[in-house]
Amino acid sequence: MPATDEEDTWVWSQIKAEAKRDAEAEPALASYLYSTILSHSSLDRSLSFHLGNKLCSSTLLSTLLYDLFLNAFSSDSNLRSAAIADLRAARERDPACVSYSHCLLNYKGFLSCQAHRVAHKLWTEARRPLALALSSRIADVFAVDIHPAARIGKGILFDHATGVVVGETAVIGNNVSILHHVTLGGTGKVGGDRHPKIGDGVLIGAGATILGNVKIGEGAKIGAGSVVLIDVPPRTTAVGNPARLVGGKERPSKHEDVPGESMDHTSFISEWSDYII
Amino acid sequence: MPATDEEDTWVWSQIKAEAKRDAEAEPALASYLYSTILSHSSLDRSLSFHLGNKLCSSTLLSTLLYDLFLNAFSSDSNLRSAAIADLRAARERDPACVSYSHCLLNYKGFLSCQAHRVAHKLWTEARRPLALALSSRIADVFAVDIHPAARIGKGILFDHATGVVVGETAVIGNNVSILHHVTLGGTGKVGGDRHPKIGDGVLIGAGATILGNVKIGEGAKIGAGSVVLIDVPPRTTAVGNPARLVGGKERPSKHEDVPGESMDHTSFISEWSDYII
Amino acid sequence: MPATDEEDTWVWSQIKAEAKRDAEAEPALASYLYSTILSHSSLDRSLSFHLGNKLCSSTLLSTLLYDLFLNAFSSDSNLRSAAIADLRAARERDPACVSYSHCLLNYKGFLSCQAHRVAHKLWTEARRPLALALSSRIADVFAVDIHPAARIGKGILFDHATGVVVGETAVIGNNVSILHHVTLGGTGKVGGDRHPKIGDGVLIGAGATILGNVKIGEGAKIGAGSVVLIDVPPRTTAVGNPARLVGGKERPSKHEDVPGESMDHTSFISEWSDYII
Amino acid sequence: MPATDEEDTWVWSQIKAEAKRDAEAEPALASYLYSTILSHSSLDRSLSFHLGNKLCSSTLLSTLLYDLFLNAFSSDSNLRSAAIADLRAARERDPACVSYSHCLLNYKGFLSCQAHRVAHKLWTEARRPLALALSSRIADVFAVDIHPAARIGKGILFDHATGVVVGETAVIGNNVSILHHVTLGGTGKVGGDRHPKIGDGVLIGAGATILGNVKIGEGAKIGAGSVVLIDVPPRTTAVGNPARLVGGKERPSKHEDVPGESMDHTSFISEWSDYII
Amino acid sequence: MPATDEEDTWVWSQIKAEAKRDAEAEPALASYLYSTILSHSSLDRSLSFHLGNKLCSSTLLSTLLYDLFLNAFSSDSNLRSAAIADLRAARERDPACVSYSHCLLNYKGFLSCQAHRVAHKLWTEARRPLALALSSRIADVFAVDIHPAARIGKGILFDHATGVVVGETAVIGNNVSILHHVTLGGTGKVGGDRHPKIGDGVLIGAGATILGNVKIGEGAKIGAGSVVLIDVPPRTTAVGNPARLVGGKERPSKHEDVPGESMDHTSFISEWSDYII
Amino acid sequence: MPATDEEDTWVWSQIKAEAKRDAEAEPALASYLYSTILSHSSLDRSLSFHLGNKLCSSTLLSTLLYDLFLNAFSSDSNLRSAAIADLRAARERDPACVSYSHCLLNYKGFLSCQAHRVAHKLWTEARRPLALALSSRIADVFAVDIHPAARIGKGILFDHATGVVVGETAVIGNNVSILHHVTLGGTGKVGGDRHPKIGDGVLIGAGATILGNVKIGEGAKIGAGSVVLIDVPPRTTAVGNPARLVGGKERPSKHEDVPGESMDHTSFISEWSDYII
Repeated sequence: MPATDEEDTWVWSQIKAEAKRDAEAEPALASYLYSTILSHSSLDRSLSFHLGNKLCSSTLLSTLLYDLFLNAFSSDSNLRSAAIADLRAARERDPACVSYSHCLLNYKGFLSCQAHRVAHKLWTEARRPLALALSSRIADVFAVDIHPAARIGKGILFDHATGVVVGETAVIGNNVSILHHVTLGGTGKVGGDRHPKIGDGVLIGAGATILGNVKIGEGAKIGAGSVVLIDVPPRTTAVGNPARLVGGKERPSKHEDVPGESMDHTSFISEWSDYII
Repeated sequence: MPATDEEDTWVWSQIKAEAKRDAEAEPALASYLYSTILSHSSLDRSLSFHLGNKLCSSTLLSTLLYDLFLNAFSSDSNLRSAAIADLRAARERDPACVSYSHCLLNYKGFLSCQAHRVAHKLWTEARRPLALALSSRIADVFAVDIHPAARIGKGILFDHATGVVVGETAVIGNNVSILHHVTLGGTGKVGGDRHPKIGDGVLIGAGATILGNVKIGEGAKIGAGSVVLIDVPPRTTAVGNPARLVGGKERPSKHEDVPGESMDHTSFISEWSDYII
Repeated sequence: MPATDEEDTWVWSQIKAEAKRDAEAEPALASYLYSTILSHSSLDRSLSFHLGNKLCSSTLLSTLLYDLFLNAFSSDSNLRSAAIADLRAARERDPACVSYSHCLLNYKGFLSCQAHRVAHKLWTEARRPLALALSSRIADVFAVDIHPAARIGKGILFDHATGVVVGETAVIGNNVSILHHVTLGGTGKVGGDRHPKIGDGVLIGAGATILGNVKIGEGAKIGAGSVVLIDVPPRTTAVGNPARLVGGKERPSKHEDVPGESMDHTSFISEWSDYII
Repeated sequence: MPATDEEDTWVWSQIKAEAKRDAEAEPALASYLYSTILSHSSLDRSLSFHLGNKLCSSTLLSTLLYDLFLNAFSSDSNLRSAAIADLRAARERDPACVSYSHCLLNYKGFLSCQAHRVAHKLWTEARRPLALALSSRIADVFAVDIHPAARIGKGILFDHATGVVVGETAVIGNNVSILHHVTLGGTGKVGGDRHPKIGDGVLIGAGATILGNVKIGEGAKIGAGSVVLIDVPPRTTAVGNPARLVGGKERPSKHEDVPGESMDHTSFISEWSDYII
Repeated sequence: MPATDEEDTWVWSQIKAEAKRDAEAEPALASYLYSTILSHSSLDRSLSFHLGNKLCSSTLLSTLLYDLFLNAFSSDSNLRSAAIADLRAARERDPACVSYSHCLLNYKGFLSCQAHRVAHKLWTEARRPLALALSSRIADVFAVDIHPAARIGKGILFDHATGVVVGETAVIGNNVSILHHVTLGGTGKVGGDRHPKIGDGVLIGAGATILGNVKIGEGAKIGAGSVVLIDVPPRTTAVGNPARLVGGKERPSKHEDVPGESMDHTSFISEWSDYII
Repeated sequence: MPATDEEDTWVWSQIKAEAKRDAEAEPALASYLYSTILSHSSLDRSLSFHLGNKLCSSTLLSTLLYDLFLNAFSSDSNLRSAAIADLRAARERDPACVSYSHCLLNYKGFLSCQAHRVAHKLWTEARRPLALALSSRIADVFAVDIHPAARIGKGILFDHATGVVVGETAVIGNNVSILHHVTLGGTGKVGGDRHPKIGDGVLIGAGATILGNVKIGEGAKIGAGSVVLIDVPPRTTAVGNPARLVGGKERPSKHEDVPGESMDHTSFISEWSDYII
């Protein structure tokens, strides 16, 4: 469900209202809130400004990056609607996300993801060296390393985000939630399609490592710290190192909810505890 | 055991002596040592200056942060005594910590923890947007992501620290040692008390993931890479993914020492090796 | 096989040609490419400039670091030949590495490793406070935490690199490939020789934790997410938490290839799948 | 004579060609030339980028200023045509001006004047505090202090420019050349129209001070170091402290040329020497 | 007449009200106004913050300067009352000064003078190298070069200020107005008392040069561009190069008003015009 | 008399000793003194570092400028001996110059002159765009505008320096002292040799303007505020606007001393006073 213009307008007006309230309550933060949010006429401009200032370096100036982001956001409405969907995802799924503006300003997962989308757009336009340079800045600044060729859907929550690695041929569907230290990695030194494909609504717990061109089915759940080298069927749960399907590989347990949205990380404990000595 | 004024004075005089010795031996570093340590009249000022310069950005100026830190440290003596206790913890428990000044200047775990305490103070004073902005800077700069609401004791060693994630309702006792990539995470998207409680003297190995409102008892040890979803009784050891208690859950082995202080990561190997094929 | 002068010249001319081509195709990146590569007369100067600008802070100026790097590289030809060998390693082993210049500019693993070698040189020259300050900057900027005393060979690939931790007495051989979040850690709070020794040609998968003064034999492979507390014989594979040798500890399977070079992360899946429920 | 679109295009293409030639001849400058000129698609963008980076401070970010300049230049074609006319003025009148790009990048008089025009536009749009803040930055960075209310024509050369002061109600016509340290000042502490009015084609020599609401007629010349407190008729020359008309106030000498364009500073020497003892 | 506490409070409340009004009217400036004024609890803090950020360099950090200024202002109430008197002077005497906040933020003469007072305080405390370094920064940033030993009264207006030079043994009284490019210089290479003494209420026009240990009497006026090498009696006017007393040296004209406050620069024109050919 | 190697060594050792003494007495300045002087092994390096940090901008990085300066100083010993001669000139002629290190760090005239010499060297090597870019930085940062083609001798004192303008074909001899706001300007818009030639030992007072290809003879003196359009014979004094020779143009007074060294600005007062009404 793409963000409508109305939704855009509503979310941006929420962000401004939140920032206004916070600026009034906290003068020490007002300068920051005005420069990042309140002085801007649109989410596109606010986000471009914030990313430009976050990702710049002494050799890649903030003005250059700001220009790059603003051009991308204003020429491709998908980028904005994806940003809106990601803001909603954080707000709905993360109880620590107290406001849209908090996510916009402070969530390195959110910011990495928006910057990645611009890098990906550059990649598809055959501006590869620029795309790689931008990805490198994301990796330095946020410790989030997503190859610019990786395809990522909407409604994504990278929670905490530090240490996330997503390889070149990985694909992530819509409404997926991925915790920190998650790897969607390749294997071997041969090119080609070699990274995981993550279906819609998947939840991947902290520190999980998924390697190779495997398919994590729609609505599946990957337990924290799991090492996954195999396909995981839709609506099932894989846990452990190496990862096993909860309920057994022949007739794995299936859950009704969409874990990428419900964020239920530990429903499998009761079943899993059988393995605990 | 809180740091006394005498102890404060002694540690600060040590730090100055170390920095003086190093500045004389290494002119290339003298400018750095003077600006961060030798030009300051107290640990509060030195630490505020260093954190202000480390955590500033183009939209959150060093002068603003310096002011914020200095106000916090000079109005709350607990912050200083906690810093002293943490310095001692690093010096005593980490053989690579060759001096107090090395910890003060270079340990991102130490610096993250002191900055977190200021963010936490802001949080408790209902200055939440500022607390969250500060935590966001800590997460960007040090890759240490501690929610400002999390409560943390004294005598803490975050060793290496990169990738540590501590959730909103987590509590960490005194004299705890936590290695890098450790997660004290929540589960689900419902708010409320949902993160681990870590007792005094606990040691948590690198890459361990502890999820949910579980209780890690006083003096317990969590092996590196463990995924812990259950309570761990005092003075016992949990290892593996999923974590099991060494010695079995009925009569787990108990150790005499305080692992958070002894830093013995691998005493369980002999027992554990039984499980190794 | 050390890099010859001819090889140096060839690699540097490749880098310049790549940068020239990219600058022409992408004006927005040309400024960056000229300042980092095309304005320099040698790889030493380009690398020193780039590292100086990446690792500087408000209290450790870029000019100071540039001077430090340039002095090191121009006085020790081993540093340059190691850089060349690492560039070749990335180019040959990582299919996402599309050019030498991409590695030189954007690979935080490559940059961390070169900066570490300078820190290590300072350490061996008894300039320890400076070595530690430099390592601290590497840890802040790249989230790669290598103790300056650690000894590292040539032809090293730190792939993605975020979260790598290498302890004081660790030794890494030649032609080793190490993925992100890998820990070569110590145990206990006693000093002395307490970190892993990694043989030539080893491959260590993402998130693996190796603790203590254990020996990972030449050509061994450590699976992603493994927790290794024991010696691993040459040409064998250890996987899991705790890590077991594939094929069993009595007669472990031996592979013919050099995993550090072949980058085959998952050859053990077929054998391993026996353990998967 | 306003700059036509064709002229715009031609001047911008000249600038790019000059910068390209210089970048090829001087790799050390190429990064600078690409970031300021060669990476931009128009003079507006190049100028906005350059002014944003020159005039920014830690509390007025380059991205904010860049945005401000770009909005002004793209919404008001008079600003661009005035810039073109000023570039031509420098190129034609100043023998030390070797290229358009040299003027665009390096002439503080040119840059101050363009930035002033934007400040003036803000002033007329009743955005006075912003206009004053921008003027203050011009005064700090270039030591050129022009009140944002002052009205300035086209084809202006501020040569060297350091120390120029232009008051609130001053008016400067077209094709005027003004050297450094020139003051167009007020008198008294009463508001209202109190500053000089400079006609078209006037030349004002270095260090001249013109005070009060006096009229410097079209094509007049003011000698270096003069202090002018009276009206100066068209095509006449005033010199000295206090300034006298060359030839006497009753029948002053008249010149044929336009001194603001011919730049003849010293034609009056022969006549003046009569006064020299 | 020293500023009273009440006056302090009133001026500061005016400044805050002005800044609040401007921030509301101009979102693009709000961030600047909050960081410089609205986030601060006192004029001391606002001024220290602003000067610290204006005068810092890569080798003299803003945090260090902020600390220095704040310590000076909070330990010496004369500095604050002088600042208040100077703000009032600008507001009353300069018709272009539309608000106190405009002066505080944008007047390089005002800012130079406040920073000079701190440098002078350091000088009198025998912290001479620091005083000289601070003066050097004022000279670089504002092009205002006042020796830290020079003694300056209260109620001073340095209008425009660029190019002002005040020597080591110069003394400036109260309620003096000095325009830009004014020199109070020495003569010869011998030390000792060798610079001008400027009485209360003096007005010195733009570009005037006063050399040597001469006395400019209380309420005197020096015309723009004058070169003064002699004493000027109280309430008289000196003009020209070399400067002559208006009315003749035997019985010079005397004025009733205080030119440093009335700012009447040109009352002498009628008399002077006699000399104009 | 060129500086000998011995003299170099002695001056550099003085500078280090002064800086060491000041660093010990003033901890707040120690960081600055170590980074600019005490961490360097030679005057060349110290000066290159200081100039690189002073003159850098966001588009001309300090590392690039440092490299440029260091290459120039280490390849051309004349640059160093000229710097030494200028340091001595300031120390001997300016009673406010309390130490060599004060001049090296804080005198914008000294720093501008050294940077100009490097720009001039680039100019003579046909690296004109780079020379012009460097001169532009000097003009922005120090408000000293010297064309890179201008030829300047040794033993130069630019006292205060703000506002000095020196044109393309100007020549300045040895042991010249020039105060602030002095212009050595051209006339007309025709190229060719059009700027003043200043002989050895000349003293030019504050605010003097010398225009055209005129010759100021060896040992001549130009009074403050003078406007000089004619040749001035050796050992004579020109004062006033327009400048007249003291003693009359037929038989001007001749002085014995070298004013550029004696710094006697006002010896002519007694004679001049005859003209004062």
